[in-house]
Amino acid sequence: MYRFKITELGKDVFWLRDSERDHLVKVLRLSPGDLVVGFDNTGMEYTSVIVKIEDKSVTCRILTADHPDVEAHTSVYIVAGLSKGEKMEWVIQKGTELGMVGLVPLRAKRSVMHLEGSKAQERVVRWQKIASEAAKQSHRVQEPQILEVSDWKDLKENLPLDTQWLIPYEEEKTQRLVSVLDTLDRERPIAILIGPEGGFDEAEVALAQEKLGAKSVSLGPRILRTETAALAALTLVLAHYGDLG
Amino acid sequence: MYRFKITELGKDVFWLRDSERDHLVKVLRLSPGDLVVGFDNTGMEYTSVIVKIEDKSVTCRILTADHPDVEAHTSVYIVAGLSKGEKMEWVIQKGTELGMVGLVPLRAKRSVMHLEGSKAQERVVRWQKIASEAAKQSHRVQEPQILEVSDWKDLKENLPLDTQWLIPYEEEKTQRLVSVLDTLDRERPIAILIGPEGGFDEAEVALAQEKLGAKSVSLGPRILRTETAALAALTLVLAHYGDLG
Repeated sequence: MYRFKITELGKDVFWLRDSERDHLVKVLRLSPGDLVVGFDNTGMEYTSVIVKIEDKSVTCRILTADHPDVEAHTSVYIVAGLSKGEKMEWVIQKGTELGMVGLVPLRAKRSVMHLEGSKAQERVVRWQKIASEAAKQSHRVQEPQILEVSDWKDLKENLPLDTQWLIPYEEEKTQRLVSVLDTLDRERPIAILIGPEGGFDEAEVALAQEKLGAKSVSLGPRILRTETAALAALTLVLAHYGDLG
Repeated sequence: MYRFKITELGKDVFWLRDSERDHLVKVLRLSPGDLVVGFDNTGMEYTSVIVKIEDKSVTCRILTADHPDVEAHTSVYIVAGLSKGEKMEWVIQKGTELGMVGLVPLRAKRSVMHLEGSKAQERVVRWQKIASEAAKQSHRVQEPQILEVSDWKDLKENLPLDTQWLIPYEEEKTQRLVSVLDTLDRERPIAILIGPEGGFDEAEVALAQEKLGAKSVSLGPRILRTETAALAALTLVLAHYGDLG
């Protein structure tokens, strides 16, 4: 069954408008009587039947309401140093499937991609679309949020106050990620800081440790590209708390 | 320091020929006196100085020989149902960084990509090149091997006899990957069977269980794309045995 993000939820019905309506009508060519699944980003999921297709909206009657146990219980964010387009998009798509709760694009020192002003806003809109599509595909009921492009100084206020910060770092030779995870509180959010291509520089790691209380961790002896590091770290954090694998 | 695969190893020197020689000379434009690292796929790594550049070869004098602890101790293979080009390439590149020992491309029932004869051989050569490049980039000293494109019936003889087989499967709801890993022998190779886009069909899973003794496992409640499933499973297997994270 195809999945749609609910535009407006009523008592026994919901409505799809704009791109969700258009996708249902023009791309998937569904008709009244077809079954669909709707979700409203609260964790609920509604199996429904299309009852009316109009120019501006589709009306669906709800048959059953569920709260599937599909979302990770520990909130894990990725903070990703801006890297070239395709890599960010991969991390967003795959990070969504794996179960991240959000992603913050970070202007890091070695970021070769520069995003400011309206260009940054447009890119976030596009990234959010990728996350939303991936959420549907992986049957999630809450879309991860792509936050605004941030500088180091904004990070603290852009994520929850009680966030615990991890920073995988090639020069960290002793503290391995999996052992540090035992010392964290799974009830509080966890943010994984991942450098751009070329990694974070020493001063950025020191800043993260000092200002955010970030723990530097090793991912093992092999050098991982930025996108591989992001997804491997996310996988290991989620699996450690029973949310994956 | 740039890394090169040794063409011929002598007592205190090695030679680079063909594409390794050309890459050093034409792309990186290195000169006699420059330092390089050579590896010969035995696990050894040689820090060396370029002493002579000729039309057909580069001669390097070995300064130090090491056996870095960079390779995974447990041999993990990915057996990947043929899927569209970019996905296979990603799995090969990222799987190499993470630490897989080899990959078998599998003609699965739902594979939309069909590869036969010389076309299959050419593709394997190209995939091997991707693996070799990624091995250098991640500072590995043994390149993973891309095996020939196989059918289900060939799998058993194409991998070591004592291989333990895992097959992540969406319909497996009880056995989770991480709990099954406790029952495996880390001294024996492990092969992870990953379906193409659309997954394996029921008969293939039954075949794997019956003919290979494969254990079907769940990767969790969210639906993962084939390339995400491959890399997440590989990450979790390697981390479970202390080879990552």
